[in-house]
Amino acid sequence: MSQVLLCEPNVSEGRDLEVVEQIVAQVRQVDGVRILDYSSDADHNRSVITYLGAPEPVIEASKAMASKALALIDMRKHTGSHPRMGAVDVVPFVPIREVETEEAIAIARRFGSFLGGLNVPVYYYEDAATRPERKRLPNIRKGEYEALEDKLRDPDFAPDEGPAVFNPQAGATVTGVRFPLIAFNVNLHTTDLSIAERIARAVRHISGGYRYVRAIGLALADKDMVQVSMNLVNYEKTPIPRVLETIRSEAARYGVNVAGTELIGPVPMGALDEVVKHYLQAHDFSLEQIIELTDL
Amino acid sequence: MSQVLLCEPNVSEGRDLEVVEQIVAQVRQVDGVRILDYSSDADHNRSVITYLGAPEPVIEASKAMASKALALIDMRKHTGSHPRMGAVDVVPFVPIREVETEEAIAIARRFGSFLGGLNVPVYYYEDAATRPERKRLPNIRKGEYEALEDKLRDPDFAPDEGPAVFNPQAGATVTGVRFPLIAFNVNLHTTDLSIAERIARAVRHISGGYRYVRAIGLALADKDMVQVSMNLVNYEKTPIPRVLETIRSEAARYGVNVAGTELIGPVPMGALDEVVKHYLQAHDFSLEQIIELTDL
Repeated sequence: MSQVLLCEPNVSEGRDLEVVEQIVAQVRQVDGVRILDYSSDADHNRSVITYLGAPEPVIEASKAMASKALALIDMRKHTGSHPRMGAVDVVPFVPIREVETEEAIAIARRFGSFLGGLNVPVYYYEDAATRPERKRLPNIRKGEYEALEDKLRDPDFAPDEGPAVFNPQAGATVTGVRFPLIAFNVNLHTTDLSIAERIARAVRHISGGYRYVRAIGLALADKDMVQVSMNLVNYEKTPIPRVLETIRSEAARYGVNVAGTELIGPVPMGALDEVVKHYLQAHDFSLEQIIELTDL
Repeated sequence: MSQVLLCEPNVSEGRDLEVVEQIVAQVRQVDGVRILDYSSDADHNRSVITYLGAPEPVIEASKAMASKALALIDMRKHTGSHPRMGAVDVVPFVPIREVETEEAIAIARRFGSFLGGLNVPVYYYEDAATRPERKRLPNIRKGEYEALEDKLRDPDFAPDEGPAVFNPQAGATVTGVRFPLIAFNVNLHTTDLSIAERIARAVRHISGGYRYVRAIGLALADKDMVQVSMNLVNYEKTPIPRVLETIRSEAARYGVNVAGTELIGPVPMGALDEVVKHYLQAHDFSLEQIIELTDL
């Protein structure tokens, strides 16, 4: 199986779609990179591009993408509802296959060093963070673009790459490495929202549940159902079947059944490995047995 | 996703491994074809080669493989315990991804026509069969190589390709298209072999079970367990979870639990699609969501 690294940059332009197209075109012209998706939100005034490939083509595409975004986006004119700090706002690298975290961190650092060389202050986050308080994005981004000029005078906010000098057009960039995130929703045969909310509290980390689960309860008015809507942020340590079976058990306390589930968007094969092993009890199953994952 | 066609020829040489290597080398030298596995059995005096790729490279490799096997194997000298009819004995083409059955049949027919042009009588079987009585391999192969000369005089046994004339060195070849086969075993926490045998009878087609299941009961002496050992010959129409849950229910009649299962050898991703959908109740899940199946 060949290496696959995913990159999902957020850039601070979601209204001028010609600009977005020019930025995406920089990714598209790199051989060995495939764009999975890109979408723009005018209200947020932000675009998200998702692409993948072997590490080298992915960093090449990321550099070209960022250079173009820096040339075309001026943060002095930016307004929008989504928190942001720079033209090239957040650039997470996500190891999908045969890429160790350390290797992905090295890629993120090379990318950060490149941006630093373009006079953009750069901060490393998540698995690439250089200190604990920079692990979480909201900590770094507090005050957003508008607070940057002041914050850069604070030695504690010295950037990991690039000058500790405010760059009014570019702002600052956060880059790093994070685990693939699974968007997983469980629909319940009841209209009682409080049941979904209680179950969300039972499974999510913040209120005593599984360490790598974020969850909320939602009403699905059009379906006469409620939903436990989740992000599973580490499917190896908190696998899908364990979460689903806990929800099934909690729902049974109220006499409520699971109507169905939803896996939203791209799913790494690794997240389904545990589904096969758990439910088939196929203890020795390996993803390498899957014919389609054989490289040609 | 790109097209993947698998080919799994059986050739009638399993003792002279130099000959086998020369035949395998013909497959290996074709760009775009990957050899998954090959193995030889001296007792059967037969080798099985498994390779895959896009349809055109696969037929190219198959022609080269067959030409070499015809040059190096002489059926007049062949003995072995496995039923066989020719040097290039059976050549099944198996659609794995993005290949319709009709397209695979066209490939099998082009391969058959090529062999016919080399004066080998060729018979189409399974999904490529030209008449119902040629669907099943044992029907065509009855009497084996030794009966060929006589059988070829019978107009009902006229070959689908090539001359209706006995070719003593090559014998005859059967080629066609079949569905991928899943080798699936369920281990039960008991030493009572009769329970595995009864469950095998409950699930297998021949004794009233699921249409696309072949099953036997076996003792696993080293594990103090018994096993229902199966071939699932159409995982779309008789999916893995349905078979497993039936076995679980039948075993429960005897107070016996499923200890684990085994998926043996290569597994097409399509067979796991139903595992995810069934057990996660993820009704709208699509294999296209799997990141690793994205072509680069």
